[in-house]
Amino acid sequence: MEKTCADELPLTVNSSESKETICIFGTGDFGRSLGLKMLQCGYSVVFGSRNPQMSSLLPDGAEVLSYPEAVKSSDIIFLTIHREHYEFLTELTAVLNGKTLVDVSNNIKINQYPESNAEYLAQLVPGAHVVKAFNTISAWALQSGALDASRQVFVCGNDSKAKQRVMDIARTLGLTPLDQGSLMAAAEIENYPLQLFPMWRFPFYLSAALCAFFFFYCVIREVIYPYVNDKSDTTFRLAISIPNRVFPITALTLLALVYLPGVIAAILQLYRGTKYCRFPDWLDHWMLCRKQLGLVALGFAFLHVLYTLVIPIRYYVRWRLRNLTVTQTLLKKENTFSTTSAWLGDSYVALGILGFFLFVLLGITSLPSVSNMVNWREFRFVQSKLGYLTLILCTAHTLVYGGKKFLSPSVLRWYLPSAYILALIIPCTVLVIKFILIMPCIDKTLTRIRQGWERNSKISKSALNGKTDI
Amino acid sequence: MEKTCADELPLTVNSSESKETICIFGTGDFGRSLGLKMLQCGYSVVFGSRNPQMSSLLPDGAEVLSYPEAVKSSDIIFLTIHREHYEFLTELTAVLNGKTLVDVSNNIKINQYPESNAEYLAQLVPGAHVVKAFNTISAWALQSGALDASRQVFVCGNDSKAKQRVMDIARTLGLTPLDQGSLMAAAEIENYPLQLFPMWRFPFYLSAALCAFFFFYCVIREVIYPYVNDKSDTTFRLAISIPNRVFPITALTLLALVYLPGVIAAILQLYRGTKYCRFPDWLDHWMLCRKQLGLVALGFAFLHVLYTLVIPIRYYVRWRLRNLTVTQTLLKKENTFSTTSAWLGDSYVALGILGFFLFVLLGITSLPSVSNMVNWREFRFVQSKLGYLTLILCTAHTLVYGGKKFLSPSVLRWYLPSAYILALIIPCTVLVIKFILIMPCIDKTLTRIRQGWERNSKISKSALNGKTDI
Amino acid sequence: MEKTCADELPLTVNSSESKETICIFGTGDFGRSLGLKMLQCGYSVVFGSRNPQMSSLLPDGAEVLSYPEAVKSSDIIFLTIHREHYEFLTELTAVLNGKTLVDVSNNIKINQYPESNAEYLAQLVPGAHVVKAFNTISAWALQSGALDASRQVFVCGNDSKAKQRVMDIARTLGLTPLDQGSLMAAAEIENYPLQLFPMWRFPFYLSAALCAFFFFYCVIREVIYPYVNDKSDTTFRLAISIPNRVFPITALTLLALVYLPGVIAAILQLYRGTKYCRFPDWLDHWMLCRKQLGLVALGFAFLHVLYTLVIPIRYYVRWRLRNLTVTQTLLKKENTFSTTSAWLGDSYVALGILGFFLFVLLGITSLPSVSNMVNWREFRFVQSKLGYLTLILCTAHTLVYGGKKFLSPSVLRWYLPSAYILALIIPCTVLVIKFILIMPCIDKTLTRIRQGWERNSKISKSALNGKTDI
Repeated sequence: MEKTCADELPLTVNSSESKETICIFGTGDFGRSLGLKMLQCGYSVVFGSRNPQMSSLLPDGAEVLSYPEAVKSSDIIFLTIHREHYEFLTELTAVLNGKTLVDVSNNIKINQYPESNAEYLAQLVPGAHVVKAFNTISAWALQSGALDASRQVFVCGNDSKAKQRVMDIARTLGLTPLDQGSLMAAAEIENYPLQLFPMWRFPFYLSAALCAFFFFYCVIREVIYPYVNDKSDTTFRLAISIPNRVFPITALTLLALVYLPGVIAAILQLYRGTKYCRFPDWLDHWMLCRKQLGLVALGFAFLHVLYTLVIPIRYYVRWRLRNLTVTQTLLKKENTFSTTSAWLGDSYVALGILGFFLFVLLGITSLPSVSNMVNWREFRFVQSKLGYLTLILCTAHTLVYGGKKFLSPSVLRWYLPSAYILALIIPCTVLVIKFILIMPCIDKTLTRIRQGWERNSKISKSALNGKTDI
Repeated sequence: MEKTCADELPLTVNSSESKETICIFGTGDFGRSLGLKMLQCGYSVVFGSRNPQMSSLLPDGAEVLSYPEAVKSSDIIFLTIHREHYEFLTELTAVLNGKTLVDVSNNIKINQYPESNAEYLAQLVPGAHVVKAFNTISAWALQSGALDASRQVFVCGNDSKAKQRVMDIARTLGLTPLDQGSLMAAAEIENYPLQLFPMWRFPFYLSAALCAFFFFYCVIREVIYPYVNDKSDTTFRLAISIPNRVFPITALTLLALVYLPGVIAAILQLYRGTKYCRFPDWLDHWMLCRKQLGLVALGFAFLHVLYTLVIPIRYYVRWRLRNLTVTQTLLKKENTFSTTSAWLGDSYVALGILGFFLFVLLGITSLPSVSNMVNWREFRFVQSKLGYLTLILCTAHTLVYGGKKFLSPSVLRWYLPSAYILALIIPCTVLVIKFILIMPCIDKTLTRIRQGWERNSKISKSALNGKTDI
Repeated sequence: MEKTCADELPLTVNSSESKETICIFGTGDFGRSLGLKMLQCGYSVVFGSRNPQMSSLLPDGAEVLSYPEAVKSSDIIFLTIHREHYEFLTELTAVLNGKTLVDVSNNIKINQYPESNAEYLAQLVPGAHVVKAFNTISAWALQSGALDASRQVFVCGNDSKAKQRVMDIARTLGLTPLDQGSLMAAAEIENYPLQLFPMWRFPFYLSAALCAFFFFYCVIREVIYPYVNDKSDTTFRLAISIPNRVFPITALTLLALVYLPGVIAAILQLYRGTKYCRFPDWLDHWMLCRKQLGLVALGFAFLHVLYTLVIPIRYYVRWRLRNLTVTQTLLKKENTFSTTSAWLGDSYVALGILGFFLFVLLGITSLPSVSNMVNWREFRFVQSKLGYLTLILCTAHTLVYGGKKFLSPSVLRWYLPSAYILALIIPCTVLVIKFILIMPCIDKTLTRIRQGWERNSKISKSALNGKTDI
C-alpha cells in the first residue's frame, strides 16, 4: 500500500488535530524537501538557519528562525548539515540538552572518518539523544513521491524512546523504519547508501575475465585458424556461434566455483582436525559471495539457452542445411538413420534442459522473499543437494556433448583442444573430490569435526561430555 | 512459517492460562468467522447483538449478550457492523468510555464518505480509543485458513497502547500487523481492499490501444493487401506472424515510454531553470507508473521471444523451406553464402537476445523483495544505466532487423511502410534527446538545478551559501 | 543491509560503552558459537558449566563459572542445553527468579513431546520469564557469518519486556527478530526448523505418480508397440519425445487439479445448503496445497516449453525433414500448401504460448513479496479469473493439437488412445462443471450461501436481519 499523504490530507484535517512541531537545522536541498514532506503530512516545521532572513526558497508554511530560537520550538531536531559544520553545535549544548537530534548526514566515501557522523555528533552534544536515520532516502525521492527504490529508513540510537519517536515520524511520512539497534550501527548505516553492489564485484570481474579468455581462445580456434589455413572468412561467428561457446563454458566454470570453496573448506577442516580455526581470508570472502557467483552463472546459462534456441532461425544454419539436402539429393546418397547419434544428441539436449531447469529453481529459491520462507534445513537441502545435482547434470551435458569426438586428436587446432574441454576441468575436479568426501568413513569424521570435535584436543573428553549441550 | 493455531492447540492448553475475553459487536458472517478464529486461538468471545436470542449460527463456546452487557465483559470491542448502523453506539458512549473500539468495516466504493469510517466512529464515541484494523482480511480466508493472499493487517489509531493490543491479537491469529500511524491513515486503509490494480490501469489501456492499432495496421498490410492484389489467402498469419510483429513493436514503444517522461521532465527543468515547480499532473502520473509500463513491456517482449522461437516448428515455415530446397535442387542453382546476410542476421538476433536478457534483469530487480535489498544508488544504477542500455540494444535490434531493406520504397504497400519503422520513432527520439542531455554543458546545468540551484533566483547566493547544508 | 558486526567494530569502541553481560548455560557447539558472536558484537559473556575447569574450547574473552555463580552475573540467561537435561535447573529456581531464560533448544522429531520445550521450562522454573528464540539459527551460520538462509529469529514469550530484550539482542547480532506472541507459539517455533517442505510433499508425490504412469503408457504405445509390430528400435524417444508428452500431460492434469477442489467445495456447499459445515479433511488439505500444485504444474509446463523449442535442433527431426525433402524432390511430387494445416498448427502453438505466458504470470504473482503487495480483491482476480483463463487456454491448446486426428480410430494402438486424450479428462470436467456453476441461477444461490445464508435454517430470518452486520 503506497502512502502519499500529500495528496490525501486536506489542510482542514490537520487543523482538527494539534500539530506536532519539528525543527530542521539546515536549509539545503534535503532539508527543504524533508520540511515540505513533513508539512504535507501534517507537521509544523521550523527551520533553523544562520541567516534566517536570506532563506526564501523554503516551503510555504514553514517558519525560519535562528538556531537557538528554532531549538526552543521543538524537542526533536533534524540535522541536515554536512558533518564538517557540526562544530557550531557545541555552542548550543545547553539548549540541546535532553532533545532528540536526528543525524541524516552521509559521507562521500565509505569509512571516510574513524567514527561515524552520528557517534561524532553524540560526542559533541553529549546531553542530546542522537538518532541516526533518513540518510538512505534521497531528496529527489522525498520530493517527487517516486519512492520506487527502497522506502526503508534504517534507524539506530542509544535512547529507545527517541528512536521510537523518529520511527513514528518515518511511518507518518510513508516510509518503513527498521530498528538497527544502538548507535554503534551508525557507521554501517552511513556506509550503506555509498555502496554499489559490493558483493557482486568479485563475481562480475571474475566472469568478465573468464569470458574474455574463452572468447579469445575461441576466436583463435574458430576464426583465425580457418583464415590462416583456408583463407575462409568466418568472422560472422563472432555474433552468435562464439558467444554460444563462451557463455556455457563461463556458466559451468562459475557454477563449479560456487561449490569449490565448500570442498576446500572441508579438506582444510579434515587436515586441521578442527573447525575452530579461521579459514584464510580469501576463502571466507569466496564463501560469502557464492550466491552472487551462482546467479551470474545462471545469467550466462540463460543466455546460452537463448543462443541455442535461435540456432534454427539463423541464416547460416538454414543455408548449410539446405545445401546438405541439395547435395544429398543430387548425389542420390542414402542418409541412414543412426540410433547412436539420435541417442547422443537427444540425451545431451535433455541433460542440458534438466540442468537448466534445476538451475532456475535454485535461482528462484535465492530470491530474498523466497529464502525467507524456508528454514535452515530446507535451504541446505535446496542449495546443497539440488545444487550438486545441477552441477552433475550440467557437467554430464558437456561430457555427452563431446560424445565420440571427445579428446580425439582430429579436433585439435594448433594443439588447442576444443574450448568445452577446458570447461570440464574445474567441475570434474569438484565432483570427484565431493564424491570422495561423502564416502562414509570421511563423511563421519567431517561431521564430528563440524559438531565441535577436535582431533588434537587433549580435553576432547570434555567436548564429548558436552554432548549434552547443543 | 504458517500459523494455524486451530489445528495445534488442544483445549487443555487454553485452560491452563487465563483466557482473555474479546467482545464482538455484530453477528454477520465476518463477525462469526472472526469469533470462531479467536475461540480457536484461545480467546473467550462474547458477541453483542440486538437479538441475543435469535443468533444461533454463532460458533460453539461463544456467549451472546445484548450490547450493553457484552461491553462489560471486555475492554476491547470489535465492531463488525456496517457504517450505516453506527448511530446506536451513541447510546453506549458512557460504557464505551476508555475502551478500545476496533473498526473493521469496509465501504463499497473508494472514498464513499467525506471522512473514513474509523474517524466517523471516533467522532461518535469520543471517549473510546478507536483502532482501524482487520478490514483487509476476508471472512472466507479467516474461516478456511487459506490465507494465501496477504496476511497483512494494516492497523492505525491515535492511542498507541490500544493499537499495540490489537496488533498482538492479530499476531495471535497468525496474521502480520503493520502499524500505519495515526487514525488519519484510516481513509487509505479503507480504500485499500477496494482497489483493483490502480497503478496498472494506464499501462494496460495504453498497451491495449497500441496493440489494437498495430494489429489493424499489420492486417491491412499483410492480409488485406495480398488478398486485394493477388487474391491470396494469408489469414493464417493472424495466429502467429502478425502477433509476432505487434508484440515487439508494442514492447519497444512501451519501453521508450518508460524513459520519455524523465526526458520531458529534464527539458522542463532546464526551461524553467528551477526544480521547485510542480510538473503538470499528467507528467507526475506518468512518472509514477513507469515501473508498471516497463513490466507490461517486458511481458510483450517475453511473448515476442516465445513467438520467435517457435518459428522453425511452424507448418508454414517448414513448408516454405522445403519448397525452396526442392526448387533449388530441381533448378540446380547454386546457393552462394553471403557473409553480409550472415552478419546482419546473426547480429540482429544477438542484439535482441542481449536486450531481452537485460530486460529480464530489470524485471527481476523490480520485484519488491529484490528492490528492498538495494540502496538508492544501486537502484538508480540498475533502472537508469541498465535501462538505457536495454533501450539502446532493443532499438539497435530493430534497426538491424530492417537491415538493407530499411526505408526502401519496395516495401511500401499502399504507401504504408513496414510496421517496425513506426516502432522506431519514439525510441529513437528518446535516445537522441537523452544523448543531448548528457552532453557535459547541459548535464552540468541540470545537475545544479537538481541540487537546488535556481536560474532566476535573486537570492541564489543564499542557496550557494546553503551548500554547506545537505 | 548485511550486518556483520564482527568485522566492523574495533575493540576500542566497545570499551567506551558499558558492556552488557549475557550468561550462557551450556558449552556445546551452539553455545560457543553464540558466545563468540556476542563477544564480537560488544557483549560480555559468562558461560555457566558443570565443570568450569574443563571447558577450554570457549572463545577468548568469555568467563566460565559454575551455574549458580554464572547466574549472578546477568539477568538474561541463554539455555543451550538439550531438554533432557533441564532438571538441574530446579535446584536453581531461587536464583533464577525474575530472570529472563532464553530457550534455544530444538528437538529431533516434530511434536516429540506433549508440550514444547519452552513451556516445559516455564513449568520447571515458574519464577523466570521464559522466552523461546534463536532455535531457527544454526551454529554454523552464526559462526561463519554465512547467514544466506533465513535470518529470521522467531521469538515468543509471555513477558513482553523479556521478549523485547531478546529481540534487541537478536537485532544487535544482525538477525531479524519476529514476535510470534505468547509462549503457546513455542511448539510451532520448535517444529519449524524440523520441517522439510511439508506443503510440497503431496504435490510432489502426486506429480511423480502421474509422471510414472504416463511415462509407461507412452513407452508402451511408442516404444514397445513399434518394436513388437515392426521390430523398429525407437528407444531414443525415451530422452526427449516421450518426456515431451509426459510433461505437458502432467502439467495440464495438475493445473486442473488446482481448480478441482474449488469446484467440489462449491458442489458440497450447494448440496448441503450451508457453508457452516467443515469440508472433509482430504478436501481441506487439498485446498491448502493448491498453490504448490500450481507451481509444480508450472515447472512441468516450463520443461515442456524447453523440450518443444529444441525440436528443430534434434538430430532425428533434421534427419526426417531432410529425407522428406529428398523424397519429394526425387518423386517431383507437388507439396501443396494447406491453409487448414497452417491455421491448425499456428493456433495450437499460439494458444500454448498464451497459456504459458499467463501461467508464468500466475507463478510470479505467487512469489511471497509480490502476493504481499496485492490486496484480497486483486489476489482473487489473478488466481481465479486469470487462473481459469490459463486452464481454458491450455485445454484448448491440447484440443487443437489433437486437431483432425482427435479420437480417430487410426491412432489407437492396442486399443490405447493417444496419451494427450487422457490428459483432457480432468480439465474438461472441471471446465464444464465450472461453466454450470457460474450460470446465474446457481451462482446466485452459491453467493448467498457464501455470505452466510442457510437453506435449512429455521432462523434464517435472523441471518437476514444480520445483513446489517458484516
